[in-house]
Amino acid sequence: MRKLSIIGIGAGNPDYMTVQAIKALSDIDVIFLIDKGRKKSALTQLRKEICERYIKNKSYRIIEAEDPERDRNPSCYEATVTAWHVQRAAIYERMIREELADGQHGAFLVWGDPSLYDSTLRIVDQVAAMKTVAFDLDVIPGITSVQALAARHRIALNRIGEPIHITTGRQLAKGMTGDNVVVMLDGDCAFKTIGDGDVDIYWGAYVGTADEILVSGKLQECGPEIEKVRNEARQRHGWIMDTYLLRKS
Amino acid sequence: MRKLSIIGIGAGNPDYMTVQAIKALSDIDVIFLIDKGRKKSALTQLRKEICERYIKNKSYRIIEAEDPERDRNPSCYEATVTAWHVQRAAIYERMIREELADGQHGAFLVWGDPSLYDSTLRIVDQVAAMKTVAFDLDVIPGITSVQALAARHRIALNRIGEPIHITTGRQLAKGMTGDNVVVMLDGDCAFKTIGDGDVDIYWGAYVGTADEILVSGKLQECGPEIEKVRNEARQRHGWIMDTYLLRKS
Repeated sequence: MRKLSIIGIGAGNPDYMTVQAIKALSDIDVIFLIDKGRKKSALTQLRKEICERYIKNKSYRIIEAEDPERDRNPSCYEATVTAWHVQRAAIYERMIREELADGQHGAFLVWGDPSLYDSTLRIVDQVAAMKTVAFDLDVIPGITSVQALAARHRIALNRIGEPIHITTGRQLAKGMTGDNVVVMLDGDCAFKTIGDGDVDIYWGAYVGTADEILVSGKLQECGPEIEKVRNEARQRHGWIMDTYLLRKS
Repeated sequence: MRKLSIIGIGAGNPDYMTVQAIKALSDIDVIFLIDKGRKKSALTQLRKEICERYIKNKSYRIIEAEDPERDRNPSCYEATVTAWHVQRAAIYERMIREELADGQHGAFLVWGDPSLYDSTLRIVDQVAAMKTVAFDLDVIPGITSVQALAARHRIALNRIGEPIHITTGRQLAKGMTGDNVVVMLDGDCAFKTIGDGDVDIYWGAYVGTADEILVSGKLQECGPEIEKVRNEARQRHGWIMDTYLLRKS
């Protein structure tokens, strides 16, 4: 039987790796890497560093595939993402079937945690449903950029007994749906759409790495600064990963 | 200057410890442990095992204090918790001032992650505001029971592009406020108050440990089973830590 692990490797800092993730990597035979366009060089490099640092089986192989192209401004977001997942599932199925021998252990390395805004689990489930290749699956949690953000700002995500909403920039643009709102996947600075004057923002980019940038304060005062800093950093690095918490005062 | 770390040690399984947490522990001088009534023996024991396994400075000391008593069914939840935090802050202040010498490194070990429904950060901020003892503070994220739950059920917390709400049993009893609702701190099986027939539940207790129990399925079918299993497990162990995801179909 093939064994497949989906391993959360944390948000950027190799020290976010858990003992469980390191143990899973130690005897791995094959690492599957999917490259994402512009972020490619820096992020793929960081994943390879994690492999070199933690995989003890020095005969392991890295199998790389290109991510299918995807419309970034689709008319129907969900349908476009679903179609893109189908394309990805075909790539994953071929990689697992052709590159992982019976009895071998393969892994996908996921930034942050596999349970939070990551498609790997969903796509691997689609591969399993094809019934063309059988494998045992395990999932290993990792530190998310949300946790890294809170730790670096030295804040809790919630005040006493309050709920927390985790959402996307796309959803936030429809309105702030709670007192503590964590926003991910926001390429358009959707915080600009919040008119409420009584909101604090805790923002961070490349959190936990040497390039980390943190900004916090009243949204109305910090918003323009964050947008400026964000654009400059994205141009400088060629990519950006950022997250923020909005909190009603 | 004193140095104080608030270290997320993950949700139950010592292998959830991160490299960053292990590095922080390696040179620690003092561990501050606060005992919580009934959970005391098992959880304190697990924390001491983590200390023995990971602290390299063998002259480290463990300073233990009793948690102040707290009304578990207060008329005003927030005021009661706030008052309890003031009592805790007095205990923390005394421990840091009396037991941590200048130049030493102390730590509080937090189950899960310091940013999610944990009061340590809030209380340490109160101690800092007293200005009776100065310290540098850092916060180290840890794997939460929410991530452990999702990993063990091999599910993502969100469907494509959907938001996630993280809340308490107390809040859930007022209604289900989203399509993906993660519930923590629920001692009363608040899922029983959800009448919607189109909800799935993914429940887990002692997740990631040898005592782990997982149940998933339609809430209407699994709800009574979970309540029964939960009561039996709590009686057997003397305490329980459980979490669940509710998802509208």
